[in-house]
Amino acid sequence: MTRTMNFNPGPSSIPLAVLEEVKEELLDFQGTGMSVLECSHRSPEYDAVHEAAQADLKELLGIDDSYHVIFMGGGASTQFMMLASNLLKEGMVADYLVTGTWSKKAIKEANIIGKAHTAANTEKDGKFTRCPKTADCDFTKGAAYVHLTSNNTIAGTQYHSFPEVDVPLIADMSSDILWRPIDATKFDYIYAGAQKNLGPAGVTVGIIRDDLLAKCKDGLPSMLSYKTFVGKKSLYNTPPAFPIYMVGKTLKWLKKGGGLAAMEKTNRQKGDLLYGVMDKHPGFFSSPVEKDSRSYMNVVFRLPTEELEQQFIAAGKEAGMIGLKGHRSVGGCRVSIYNAIPLSWVKAVSEMMEEFARKQG
Amino acid sequence: MTRTMNFNPGPSSIPLAVLEEVKEELLDFQGTGMSVLECSHRSPEYDAVHEAAQADLKELLGIDDSYHVIFMGGGASTQFMMLASNLLKEGMVADYLVTGTWSKKAIKEANIIGKAHTAANTEKDGKFTRCPKTADCDFTKGAAYVHLTSNNTIAGTQYHSFPEVDVPLIADMSSDILWRPIDATKFDYIYAGAQKNLGPAGVTVGIIRDDLLAKCKDGLPSMLSYKTFVGKKSLYNTPPAFPIYMVGKTLKWLKKGGGLAAMEKTNRQKGDLLYGVMDKHPGFFSSPVEKDSRSYMNVVFRLPTEELEQQFIAAGKEAGMIGLKGHRSVGGCRVSIYNAIPLSWVKAVSEMMEEFARKQG
Repeated sequence: MTRTMNFNPGPSSIPLAVLEEVKEELLDFQGTGMSVLECSHRSPEYDAVHEAAQADLKELLGIDDSYHVIFMGGGASTQFMMLASNLLKEGMVADYLVTGTWSKKAIKEANIIGKAHTAANTEKDGKFTRCPKTADCDFTKGAAYVHLTSNNTIAGTQYHSFPEVDVPLIADMSSDILWRPIDATKFDYIYAGAQKNLGPAGVTVGIIRDDLLAKCKDGLPSMLSYKTFVGKKSLYNTPPAFPIYMVGKTLKWLKKGGGLAAMEKTNRQKGDLLYGVMDKHPGFFSSPVEKDSRSYMNVVFRLPTEELEQQFIAAGKEAGMIGLKGHRSVGGCRVSIYNAIPLSWVKAVSEMMEEFARKQG
Repeated sequence: MTRTMNFNPGPSSIPLAVLEEVKEELLDFQGTGMSVLECSHRSPEYDAVHEAAQADLKELLGIDDSYHVIFMGGGASTQFMMLASNLLKEGMVADYLVTGTWSKKAIKEANIIGKAHTAANTEKDGKFTRCPKTADCDFTKGAAYVHLTSNNTIAGTQYHSFPEVDVPLIADMSSDILWRPIDATKFDYIYAGAQKNLGPAGVTVGIIRDDLLAKCKDGLPSMLSYKTFVGKKSLYNTPPAFPIYMVGKTLKWLKKGGGLAAMEKTNRQKGDLLYGVMDKHPGFFSSPVEKDSRSYMNVVFRLPTEELEQQFIAAGKEAGMIGLKGHRSVGGCRVSIYNAIPLSWVKAVSEMMEEFARKQG
């Protein structure tokens, strides 16, 4: 089998080693005589998987027991309303940093539940070209929290340093969690849909700090309450067990590969390769993104004409690459290079970029 | 590999043929050069899976396009609050038929959101021994809806005919959906967590009728609104794609096996076998369940002493059976015999029951 070079924005590639392990044990999980897909969520075998995934995520993020790892369904879109339901109480305001489609949705949902304030909005002439600095933000004194989207899959921007705030800091890290070591203790709540850097679609991971949890509203419906998930260790009801099992395997793969420092090294090589070609041919490749906000997960660029862009995408397909088309709302090209994308695939796409620039230049 | 006879109450067995197919194509889904776990939810390959699952479920239930099949995360517990959020409006009352742990939870969550009325409660001396008849119910005139739990996994009871109501009828069919042909058009909304009769944990299926959908509240958070799921064909955000793919495979397996009529025949054989042994040895096996409410999905019984029950469970383990222990809240024994449980396994457990009765009788 020739493996397709999958540059989709998510769901995206999963490490081949992980998929092979899953396949190998699919009919008989750890000698149980059944598939992990059939295991009870109350069985010791599943419990070990569940707890290891929580422990490994904490280890990779370098956080202690003042944080709780929770597993939920419904994707980041569910978090948009769940977060506000828990923390945006009557009379309070939450600050949102708007840097693209996803943070726009996050604030929209928050405003259905309570009062959300746009503390920054980096949209310019209809385009999001950067992430804000602390000085760009109009923070509300005593805000319930500040919410940001750490990486923007459509705009191709990413925070390389985070704003300094004196209220709880919350990040949707769906598209770049674990791409490099960060100081996770700066955050009070991090959430991420699994389907980019953590595994397959179907589970959302949350990492919540004790003192923020204590501030969460009581009396919410059980499945809307972070306290339910923490209190019952994400086993209040049947969790999305198979996606969690795969998140666990992906975390082991990360650890085995040298952890986040090693991951960052590869990710920087991958991103630098593509940005390097763009910078070498500024007349051919253009980027709507300011340099210090360039994303190392989603590299977006334009070619001189839409026709050339279509040719580029078609040539990629010919060479076994998918997902090179930019989001329909912005056009152009996009190469999503999440953790599981090997350097060799990125080399292949960078060579194709070089070739296009040379041929046309 | 010897396959464990998995009688767990859920997550439970998945047809071996389904698991084998999943394993076979796990690294290369339909010649895409990647796993279905990596496919974009916007790809034509995934779209075909998604749509086929919706169409096959409608076909099996015998419903037309006035119904919509939707896929959600969060399990039935999320439905408890989502249902009330959509339909239990200010000034209205919803009727709940309480027949066990799950319907108790359903009404509790509804009461957080609006006003729910216990129209029937079959608890007697701390035990749920039956499902109510129409005459047992104290319905509210003009109720927003009537909610029932079609099968009760812990109590071992099941509706064999449904109450006649003149308001929308809503059923949590998590533990017996598709166990036999039913007149689905009697229901305005059916929901079911997948992990018993439909596939693995991680997706909840909803089947909602147009006219009920029209009554759903506007202005809800997107992920709480049934209108979002119907309007966007459950692709508003990334769905739990792999669990949906497995639901699709399970539906194909059901159709290939002769559909719901054939499924009912096998399920009745399985249940009758176990109830037959119980009825043959009434001095040895006792059942807390009234005969006309006996569940064909979860057969519960007691042995003369707790010691004998423990011996029975241990003997099952010895013979390669798991999941024979009753729920901790009621004790005793339970054999969960969902659609995917083969008749041969049920024969094995019935023979063990016979042997125990003979030895002790």
